[in-house]
Amino acid sequence: MKKINVGIVGYGNLGKALEEILLSDKNFNLVKIFSRREYLTSKYGTGFDKTINLEKYKNDIDVLFLCVGSFNDIEEIGIKAIENFNTVDSFDTHKKLKDYIFSLDTKGKLFKKVALSAFGWDPGLMSLIRVLFDSISEDEGVSNSFWGTGVSQGHSDALRRVNGVKNAIQYTVPNREIILKCKRQFKYTPSDYEKHKRICFVAENLDENKDKIETEIINMPNYFSGYETEVNFVEENKIEKMQKKLSHKGYIVDNFKILNQYTSTLEFSLKLASNPHFTARMMSVGGKIVNKLFEEEKFGAYSILDIPIKYFSDLKRDDLLSKKL
Amino acid sequence: MKKINVGIVGYGNLGKALEEILLSDKNFNLVKIFSRREYLTSKYGTGFDKTINLEKYKNDIDVLFLCVGSFNDIEEIGIKAIENFNTVDSFDTHKKLKDYIFSLDTKGKLFKKVALSAFGWDPGLMSLIRVLFDSISEDEGVSNSFWGTGVSQGHSDALRRVNGVKNAIQYTVPNREIILKCKRQFKYTPSDYEKHKRICFVAENLDENKDKIETEIINMPNYFSGYETEVNFVEENKIEKMQKKLSHKGYIVDNFKILNQYTSTLEFSLKLASNPHFTARMMSVGGKIVNKLFEEEKFGAYSILDIPIKYFSDLKRDDLLSKKL
Repeated sequence: MKKINVGIVGYGNLGKALEEILLSDKNFNLVKIFSRREYLTSKYGTGFDKTINLEKYKNDIDVLFLCVGSFNDIEEIGIKAIENFNTVDSFDTHKKLKDYIFSLDTKGKLFKKVALSAFGWDPGLMSLIRVLFDSISEDEGVSNSFWGTGVSQGHSDALRRVNGVKNAIQYTVPNREIILKCKRQFKYTPSDYEKHKRICFVAENLDENKDKIETEIINMPNYFSGYETEVNFVEENKIEKMQKKLSHKGYIVDNFKILNQYTSTLEFSLKLASNPHFTARMMSVGGKIVNKLFEEEKFGAYSILDIPIKYFSDLKRDDLLSKKL
Repeated sequence: MKKINVGIVGYGNLGKALEEILLSDKNFNLVKIFSRREYLTSKYGTGFDKTINLEKYKNDIDVLFLCVGSFNDIEEIGIKAIENFNTVDSFDTHKKLKDYIFSLDTKGKLFKKVALSAFGWDPGLMSLIRVLFDSISEDEGVSNSFWGTGVSQGHSDALRRVNGVKNAIQYTVPNREIILKCKRQFKYTPSDYEKHKRICFVAENLDENKDKIETEIINMPNYFSGYETEVNFVEENKIEKMQKKLSHKGYIVDNFKILNQYTSTLEFSLKLASNPHFTARMMSVGGKIVNKLFEEEKFGAYSILDIPIKYFSDLKRDDLLSKKL
């Protein structure tokens, strides 16, 4: 079997998890990791180069995994990379994804490359389940998604930008009562504010006013304002310990009555000991999908909603139909 | 919006449930129900004709739903119907499905028609979830499917064929301990015998030997032999009451450790007040999919594993990418 030659751009939590997964998977040959930072080393001996030198590897890499942090980086790197590489990303800025995928699609078709975008667990696996459930429940029901208990990286970053905060971490906690209501009631669509609590752990700089920090956090628009938010002040070493635990959960429920009479409940749940490792696993599955689409010359950009499930599997269609239906 | 003109072949539990669902769904116009039986009437006023007259309607029906009972009927009717109609079925004889789909595919391409087969909840929705979970867990895990508590029509039929049995019903009951083991252990693959108990309710003819009936049931190959089987003798009117309740459940769990370290658990569950109404809902979703594939001239035969999730939804791809990812 020909191995898929792959590269990783970005070496944070996700890039590191993906490195481990690709090295342990016989389908892949990890050629290089790219980063803006210099003098990086890997305990597995993987070679590094600077992201600026990417183009030099265009003949050596079949699929490039984009693991850079912010969406600004991703847009810039993704739109450029598709000129020379098939790509997989797990970008999660829901608002920007459609336009990003449309731009990638145009360039992918022009440069005869394939891109698979937003291919993590949410967006990604949970998006697929949501659309599936909503399509089956039609207008008799609605899927409700819950996240956590788990760390939100975006909200933790927001906490760290507050004046006087030395380090911080934020846990998203689903509201159990609202989950139970979703399981029992029909067409119930609680607001995002009701569905989740936000629990913050903050280490403040010396002599900072805790009340001032707490007030600023609780009223922060887009992040905490409107949510049930709890702020706990703790020692910095406690936060560092918490930052090593990367577990997360996701849950979707769709409760509906067919013909206003026959109760039907669909549920999906996912429990992860390591958020970045599961996202990395999704991306490695995506890497195999992109490679198949490229071999079939199906150039352009895809989301998880565009891919038949048979593409996810290593089994041939014959075997899927005879063994897995 | 142009309605999809549809017909139903077969008027058992499934055909009746589908009639109700199609009549209540603005996407469809139910033209006719076909049956081998004569003098059928519907409380909704739907017109009937004999199955033998199907071909006469080839210009009036866009999608034909096959709701006949046994696989022999289905093979015969399905392979003939594809010459004139796009079809949807929820056939569940796992062993025969691959060959059936391959035969339908050849004829579908020849006659420029589309068939969607095995599109119920299992096979169907649960097949999709199984392949998805197995593809993500790779060789680190395996999905385990459980069914029930719910009535198995096939096993109930088998009971009724036993000498001396007047009427009977069989409940498939998942083994809770085995489910818990699947959630806790890794790469655990219990046999089908361990996973389910089979609870039978039997009304015997007058003066029959209950011990003889019980022994024959418990030792019946392919159905009860090897399973934990419980036989209860009850009054016939009790069984008739039970036969009106058509609830069922399904559950899939895949528990695995990424890199032998990071526990990940994927779970799917479905709880149905009416098995035939949920199957009928799946088929009505399938009818819209078949109609789209036909309009795109993608002739041939498909399983649920061949269909991108975007095809399930009434939303356009633009809206799916901007609102549902």
